[in-house]
Amino acid sequence: MDKIYSQTKYFNIEKLVLESSKELKNVSIAYETYGALNESRSNAIYIAHAFTGDAHAAGYHKDSDKPGWWDNMIGSGKAFDTDKYFVVCANILGGCAGSTGPASINPETGKPYALDFPVVTVADIVAAQKKLIDFLGIKKLLSVAGGSMGGMQVLQWSVAYPESICSAIPIATTMKHSPQQIAFNEVARQSIMADAEWNKGDYYGKKNQPDRGLAVARMIGHITYMSDKSMEEKFSRNRKTKKDSSGFAAEFEVEGYLKYRGDSFTRRFDANSYLYITKAMDLFDVSGKKFVKESKNKNLKFLVISFASDWLYPSYQSEDIVKQLKLKGFDATYIEIKSTYGHDAFLLEVDDETKLVKSFLNRVYKEANNG
Amino acid sequence: MDKIYSQTKYFNIEKLVLESSKELKNVSIAYETYGALNESRSNAIYIAHAFTGDAHAAGYHKDSDKPGWWDNMIGSGKAFDTDKYFVVCANILGGCAGSTGPASINPETGKPYALDFPVVTVADIVAAQKKLIDFLGIKKLLSVAGGSMGGMQVLQWSVAYPESICSAIPIATTMKHSPQQIAFNEVARQSIMADAEWNKGDYYGKKNQPDRGLAVARMIGHITYMSDKSMEEKFSRNRKTKKDSSGFAAEFEVEGYLKYRGDSFTRRFDANSYLYITKAMDLFDVSGKKFVKESKNKNLKFLVISFASDWLYPSYQSEDIVKQLKLKGFDATYIEIKSTYGHDAFLLEVDDETKLVKSFLNRVYKEANNG
Repeated sequence: MDKIYSQTKYFNIEKLVLESSKELKNVSIAYETYGALNESRSNAIYIAHAFTGDAHAAGYHKDSDKPGWWDNMIGSGKAFDTDKYFVVCANILGGCAGSTGPASINPETGKPYALDFPVVTVADIVAAQKKLIDFLGIKKLLSVAGGSMGGMQVLQWSVAYPESICSAIPIATTMKHSPQQIAFNEVARQSIMADAEWNKGDYYGKKNQPDRGLAVARMIGHITYMSDKSMEEKFSRNRKTKKDSSGFAAEFEVEGYLKYRGDSFTRRFDANSYLYITKAMDLFDVSGKKFVKESKNKNLKFLVISFASDWLYPSYQSEDIVKQLKLKGFDATYIEIKSTYGHDAFLLEVDDETKLVKSFLNRVYKEANNG
Repeated sequence: MDKIYSQTKYFNIEKLVLESSKELKNVSIAYETYGALNESRSNAIYIAHAFTGDAHAAGYHKDSDKPGWWDNMIGSGKAFDTDKYFVVCANILGGCAGSTGPASINPETGKPYALDFPVVTVADIVAAQKKLIDFLGIKKLLSVAGGSMGGMQVLQWSVAYPESICSAIPIATTMKHSPQQIAFNEVARQSIMADAEWNKGDYYGKKNQPDRGLAVARMIGHITYMSDKSMEEKFSRNRKTKKDSSGFAAEFEVEGYLKYRGDSFTRRFDANSYLYITKAMDLFDVSGKKFVKESKNKNLKFLVISFASDWLYPSYQSEDIVKQLKLKGFDATYIEIKSTYGHDAFLLEVDDETKLVKSFLNRVYKEANNG
């Protein structure tokens, strides 16, 4: 198969009023699209990326060998089949991969926002996505899909804009963070803020960056993305072949792996974005009465997917989503995939996800175009 | 009941040859004892403390209202009944609560060891305990018991000194750390070493200490000590009543709790000890052929306890211990206690543990004194 090339585009929002009533001006949203919008504009799917993801969900950029983060799910003949569907993915507000975030220039000061960047919520993130979808002339999305924090955005779409979507595919996600999930995020934030180079968020353009704190934060994250079993299979107690002689250098393969992943993460991610986005996740709560309560779109269909070994977003949280949906009379399909990969499974269990997503989208597409 | 007062004593080892063949001179071991040694010296039980524990296992110190860390298990009429048994607990080698560790003065330089302190292993830690027991004139311990890293010491006793113990009670522990357990320790170590004040371990007597890195390390630990469910019960998504106005200050109760516990930990624990002891845990491995292989004491009895919600030392690791023991013909009783407290359960499920330990010790005591 030929390589598909993709390109990041930018959409500008002059003024975005946030949930907090604060305003952000000159908001830039980086996005990519794959496939073609049909004449009736009825084949568009929005893909919401996870925490540290970006707009580059599929295909290749001209200057890189790295495919998009969900390239195995988005493309010709794939789960999100670009021969049939028009797929859109945007970097989230507050992020650091092209969309406006704490590292962006504050138009009022001419300097990076840093901690002057306002708290943004998942509702704000999705509000910006809605504006992008409006801008693209799409009245109703065929579906919105995403895993992990992407799944939260999916749920937020279904709560805030139920009439603008035909279906939703929340994967490995939750209606609200448990205290354990908040705790892991808080430790990561504390690790960043404990780094003297973080300097209360004011480190842009300085010689030293809060890379050590950010790397530790990422290491914590990585542990929670894998399962006990997948770590055992990947690393067991294998020793590193080359051991640094100093006292507490990595000795086991798993240590070296985490350190490497932590360090390389600092080259592509902004520490302040880590703070803002984890906070948005922790504050997210669409459980209880709020959840799809006021939806006038009772035809809204859901495909909810979880993974058996995912202990960061355990299956019971997906089951809670499904329970709420069923209680409110929605068409909801729930599958727990028997994976050993832990939370990472949503990026790895491509075969199972492809079958589920394909047949679900087929059904939604048919009903949407006959209805 | 009257308060029982206890007092820390010190035992000196002139020269301790370590597993690495390195020697430690002038080793001090802080220990406490409760109850009285009987004439035949056959009623002694060694209690091994967990990672950040100390010799103060039971009773009260004159100057403090804080009971020993296992006071609800050790005392008159309790699980380790001091009316019947003589109980000994010592701070581990490498620790920072009275026994020699990296913060101790290196007799060769007159300055704290810091990273010149040699790597110590669980075998070294237990070797020092054996010397203490010898010094106390005890030929054979009635039992050795402990949870978590204390359980590793218990297993090490049964591997290294099977003829010096009648029984062993390893609780919520493992024959070897999984890569996930190593990973959590490694992230904690990286957090400490990422703190600029750590200064390659050379911070003793300096104005600034690596408290921030150590606090984050402790916060990570705390998450792993609790279960998802126990966190939900304790904190849910409750907000702090007083919220600091700054951007990323603790907002949820669980955040405030972890921060508080992390910060107060730095006032009682040494960062370098954290590195050395976690390393000793990670290196520990008595699985496979080594495990009680060469034991000439086939009468050695085991009581193995795990807790259903303990995901840091999951029950399968205790089941592996029992399987090895059974395969080798040992008398091993295994109980998984149905607790929701996670790993902390070994300190909290006092009623169940008391029943199990009491009847087990009764049996061991009878058989030891008739045999």
